[in-house]
Amino acid sequence: MARNERLRVVLVDTRNPLNIGAAARAMSNFGFFRLRLVAPYDVAFREAVSAVGAEELLRNAEVFPSVAGAVADCSLVVGATGLGNRQPSQPLRRLELGARLLRRHLAESPAALLFGSEKFGLSNEALSHCQWLIRIPTREEHESMNLAQAVAVCLYELVRRPTAARRPLEGVPMASGAGLERLTNLLCEMLQESGFTDYGTAINAEDKTRRLVRRLYLTAKDAPVVTGMIRQVLWKLRHPG
Amino acid sequence: MARNERLRVVLVDTRNPLNIGAAARAMSNFGFFRLRLVAPYDVAFREAVSAVGAEELLRNAEVFPSVAGAVADCSLVVGATGLGNRQPSQPLRRLELGARLLRRHLAESPAALLFGSEKFGLSNEALSHCQWLIRIPTREEHESMNLAQAVAVCLYELVRRPTAARRPLEGVPMASGAGLERLTNLLCEMLQESGFTDYGTAINAEDKTRRLVRRLYLTAKDAPVVTGMIRQVLWKLRHPG
Repeated sequence: MARNERLRVVLVDTRNPLNIGAAARAMSNFGFFRLRLVAPYDVAFREAVSAVGAEELLRNAEVFPSVAGAVADCSLVVGATGLGNRQPSQPLRRLELGARLLRRHLAESPAALLFGSEKFGLSNEALSHCQWLIRIPTREEHESMNLAQAVAVCLYELVRRPTAARRPLEGVPMASGAGLERLTNLLCEMLQESGFTDYGTAINAEDKTRRLVRRLYLTAKDAPVVTGMIRQVLWKLRHPG
Repeated sequence: MARNERLRVVLVDTRNPLNIGAAARAMSNFGFFRLRLVAPYDVAFREAVSAVGAEELLRNAEVFPSVAGAVADCSLVVGATGLGNRQPSQPLRRLELGARLLRRHLAESPAALLFGSEKFGLSNEALSHCQWLIRIPTREEHESMNLAQAVAVCLYELVRRPTAARRPLEGVPMASGAGLERLTNLLCEMLQESGFTDYGTAINAEDKTRRLVRRLYLTAKDAPVVTGMIRQVLWKLRHPG
């Protein structure tokens, strides 16, 4: 967690205290706890009801009169911005890349991630403190995001695990091959007893049934339930009346 | 854009109309326009002021009395959920993987992404319509996200471009090698004229200066400005008084 602790989320000139609270909640969701505020409009922001589950984080937020103070202990300062009509003088990176570089920096040193006001984004003064800028890939025609949503998306990208896209499943164990084979056999028996002939010859039918069962992708919990259902139907087919 | 048009974002049992508006804004930010609502608590949700820039999307939202109706035209139904204390019977995938599979499905066929109520998430009835579930990788200790933030994060992952993490820069052209070399030469002259000796022998000093300049990562706009500064200082050093 040390890496996350090195990040300071800095909200500059925020107008609506509900946005501060909502940003605090997103930080807590993703495991970031150091919130800094530069000149928030509403001094009562610490009461924001939107900080569900992140009340302590919000109470511990530090307030600074200027950006310079809020980033003084950071060796990297990154600004989150839509492009708007300005042409920034710093390098602008899409979030996918920017977060990677920020993560690399956080592995060793503290960094600040700046978010501007709801209406105007980061001011030119605030931008001048940034080494480079991050842009969330929103549509050009509707670029401006809700402040706390922007915080949530940036922090998600920071905790995102590329390797997780390759892991097939999480949490739910799948049915074993033996379980599926038992189910397949019973299903074949049931189909035979019922006089189902759409699958053609007996051998062909077994293969087709097996493939069908595999496609169902049954969990370890569900396979025995379905097997039980079939067993019962099969019993009834054999003991009618 | 056809892929995005195939996604229906379905909000089930949403209580706060501001969350519906904020979700609509996030959808518009990321280029998704088909919002469906199942039994929203507040029928006046279409007036939600939080739908900044997404008013039309919100007006066009479709309302359904049940989940079954809202997903009737979808060949894949995915539920967004925290795990909470329930052990779901469907496969649960981290967002990184789930979004990849969802994207693949959307390339050809319509799909629904379901989000439950603010307090309770998706009900067991709503979950029973889902082929599988998506989990945003929040902390176990503070799993529950703000509804519209969860929508924003999921849609961001859907539009995310893995290759963007490899592209070095966007928008801002960097200084050319020739420009940096001119700057380096002038800087060396200036240091020599000023009597700066920390860099050791002349040849060594030039290498060290070159490396320093390369590390500055100057843009095409900034390099000539800095070069001009140095040129001026150099002139003054040579024409004192």
